[in-house]
Amino acid sequence: MKSWLPIPASSHFSLSNLPFGIISTSTQVKQRPAVAVGDYVLDLSAFAHGAGFSKLAPDLQQKTDVFAQATLNGFAALGRPYHRAIRNYLQEVFREDTPYPEVLKTNNALRQAALVPLSKTQVHLPLAIGDYTDFFAGRNHAFNVGTLFRGPANALQPNYNHLPVAYHGRASSVVISGTPLRRPWGQALPAPGADTPVFRPSARLDMELELGMFVCRGNALGEPIPLHEAEDFIFGYVLMNDWSARDIQQWEYVPLGPFNAKNFGTTISGWVVLADALEPFRTEGLKNEVELHPYLRNKRTDNILDIQLEVSITTTKGNKTTVTKTSSKNLLWSWPQMLAHHTIAGCNLRPGDLFGSGTISGLDAGTHGSFLEQTQGGKVPIKLEGGGERKFVEDGDTITITGWAVGTDGEIVGFGDCVGQILAAFPTVHSQK
Amino acid sequence: MKSWLPIPASSHFSLSNLPFGIISTSTQVKQRPAVAVGDYVLDLSAFAHGAGFSKLAPDLQQKTDVFAQATLNGFAALGRPYHRAIRNYLQEVFREDTPYPEVLKTNNALRQAALVPLSKTQVHLPLAIGDYTDFFAGRNHAFNVGTLFRGPANALQPNYNHLPVAYHGRASSVVISGTPLRRPWGQALPAPGADTPVFRPSARLDMELELGMFVCRGNALGEPIPLHEAEDFIFGYVLMNDWSARDIQQWEYVPLGPFNAKNFGTTISGWVVLADALEPFRTEGLKNEVELHPYLRNKRTDNILDIQLEVSITTTKGNKTTVTKTSSKNLLWSWPQMLAHHTIAGCNLRPGDLFGSGTISGLDAGTHGSFLEQTQGGKVPIKLEGGGERKFVEDGDTITITGWAVGTDGEIVGFGDCVGQILAAFPTVHSQK
Ligand SMILES: [Ca+2]
Ligand SMILES: [Ca+2]
Ligand SMILES: [Mg+2]
Ligand SMILES: [Mg+2]
Ligand code: NI
Repeated sequence: MKSWLPIPASSHFSLSNLPFGIISTSTQVKQRPAVAVGDYVLDLSAFAHGAGFSKLAPDLQQKTDVFAQATLNGFAALGRPYHRAIRNYLQEVFREDTPYPEVLKTNNALRQAALVPLSKTQVHLPLAIGDYTDFFAGRNHAFNVGTLFRGPANALQPNYNHLPVAYHGRASSVVISGTPLRRPWGQALPAPGADTPVFRPSARLDMELELGMFVCRGNALGEPIPLHEAEDFIFGYVLMNDWSARDIQQWEYVPLGPFNAKNFGTTISGWVVLADALEPFRTEGLKNEVELHPYLRNKRTDNILDIQLEVSITTTKGNKTTVTKTSSKNLLWSWPQMLAHHTIAGCNLRPGDLFGSGTISGLDAGTHGSFLEQTQGGKVPIKLEGGGERKFVEDGDTITITGWAVGTDGEIVGFGDCVGQILAAFPTVHSQK
Repeated sequence: MKSWLPIPASSHFSLSNLPFGIISTSTQVKQRPAVAVGDYVLDLSAFAHGAGFSKLAPDLQQKTDVFAQATLNGFAALGRPYHRAIRNYLQEVFREDTPYPEVLKTNNALRQAALVPLSKTQVHLPLAIGDYTDFFAGRNHAFNVGTLFRGPANALQPNYNHLPVAYHGRASSVVISGTPLRRPWGQALPAPGADTPVFRPSARLDMELELGMFVCRGNALGEPIPLHEAEDFIFGYVLMNDWSARDIQQWEYVPLGPFNAKNFGTTISGWVVLADALEPFRTEGLKNEVELHPYLRNKRTDNILDIQLEVSITTTKGNKTTVTKTSSKNLLWSWPQMLAHHTIAGCNLRPGDLFGSGTISGLDAGTHGSFLEQTQGGKVPIKLEGGGERKFVEDGDTITITGWAVGTDGEIVGFGDCVGQILAAFPTVHSQK
């Protein structure tokens, strides 16, 4: 889809994408919705204010006041047909042969007001997150990690193939790409078999490569979302790094699951790629041999997204090493299955809820979504470009996740980056008497 | 503390209490803050509007616009010294020998506008809950349940006495007392040792007697709250019923903790008893023999609240049976210890966050905070008044928690009720092919 706006062929934000986010600029600090297009963003608040939606159907125009909000929650809550209509309209506005050149293409005043260079924007959390749930749908990851701890025969827990295992995560500490995080303090056993914990900054700080999904619709408490309606509850997707302190997790997690090992921070990319933009990239995921209960039975087989994913680590010296190349098709459970399972007991979802997929890994070296897997539990270090090695993440290291899919026309539908640097632990005095 | 307003001696809402909540009435559906006093509530929105705070210090008066909000989050965020000042002021206004009779005692117009019979109010969730965390600080409960599953020698997990074990719960499904909840559907093993789950409405639906604590202050991400400052982060307390589907939990919880077994609903009482109102009821909790890391070492020994707690079950026939009598002193960990541990890895709290204590149980029959314990895992039914028995909660049953403490002057500082009825499971069609 060609645009009158120059869009580099390498841009993640092609006209086939048009992801939504929240921006501010140095000249206008108010946070407001935008779409990314090539090296620019279209400020939707300014665009709406300048009659940019004047060619949209009147009943849809009325609702564009959601673009005056400081988050995308209002827009998300209008539902997938509305997201589709707005994205289609904006594609028409930007198309080389736009039917409405007067809206933006030839409207210099509105271009000045609403088209901002991406490099001049600050990107913020796209939605106010009510609840954050992290799933465990990456079966290769579950198998790899289970093998490390229990051997391949018992790697997967008995429930694993029967239901999408998940736990509730911490919404307050979900941060936008670029936010540095301190290495967490915590209790950990000093050696396998020890029975008294030490208290220290985590010595096994890890990352987890995940996709995040934002919910756009709520359901009433007590009323499960049926699988065949679940697609309507998906707003869109982001990249996610579910930082994990393995030593803290190992000591704390029995019997109620991970807590401080995860709640010090979860990083997401800022541009929400709409569900519709990823429709062309549906494929089959990992095969489940188990006969599922009907509430989890997918009707279609192409339930999983095929997004190319890469992880790199950059040291304080600036050396960057790509450590992981994989695809998001390495999932056992689809997002609709996760939605159906999350609500089957009656749990209510709200627009802005965030789901994590679980760590996405292949089975082979170089395809693992965590250092725990890559280094076989810290035993085999990763060699870094420019020298040095890593068993886990060290102070000053920056982890970057990128993700993209390439359409049949060669246009890229991508997420940009999900970046986080680990700072030294808080210089606490409270570890002393 | 005597009042010019008649307050029944049996009222939980004595002048020593003055708990805060959110109300609406049939004539004014807007939700607004109030304090409960005897059989009345003082509508703080109307009170502020009618110059009720005119005798308060001017710098404090300025901030009373928080009482125009629809939740207590703004009030909570003003901090404990402010809560203390407002509660003290309202006690002065209501005292028999009030120094400001013109404010309310002799001000008929304002009494008409702001004093509403409790029976004419609807009570709503007191705060917008950002994140909800459930702790496991009731060691007797952990021991009782661990004994059922693993015998007394291995009842407590190795980490139990070293840190306040907790998991992240579901904020969206925290409901106000009186909200009925449907029995959850879910997967469960049909019998011990089975390996294929069935799908059914929970057959082991339980309750958990807990205290809830609302956080009033936030901390920055990455900056732990030191134990010696943690009291300042406590807004107040409510009663909590952490409904739990034991059969769903048993199947789903390894390795990431409880999920659908808990997220279908958590009931809290509506009136937040301020931390200050419970200061007179501090006592020692369960003794911890373990040498704690310094970040968890309490300075004072009277860290735990001694609140009398009772649980009753009422059948659809109206027969009510008291099944539990215990005290909230049956906790191993103090709220400041929970706050310090929750943030030690860097997790940020926000005003309105909710903590659950974990199930509060004694060791003896009749003091257990769950049916699981009372019935020894469903083996020994509870006899009900008027006939019948229960192993777990049945459709139509209402569980009522009450909690109170009696001051040296005989005045009651109580929570009122935390009530929830279980309805039949959702008549889902999605369990069929
Ligand atoms: Ca994860
Ligand atoms: Ca609980
Ligand atoms: Mg995380
Ligand atoms: Mg609950
Ligand atoms: Ni249906």
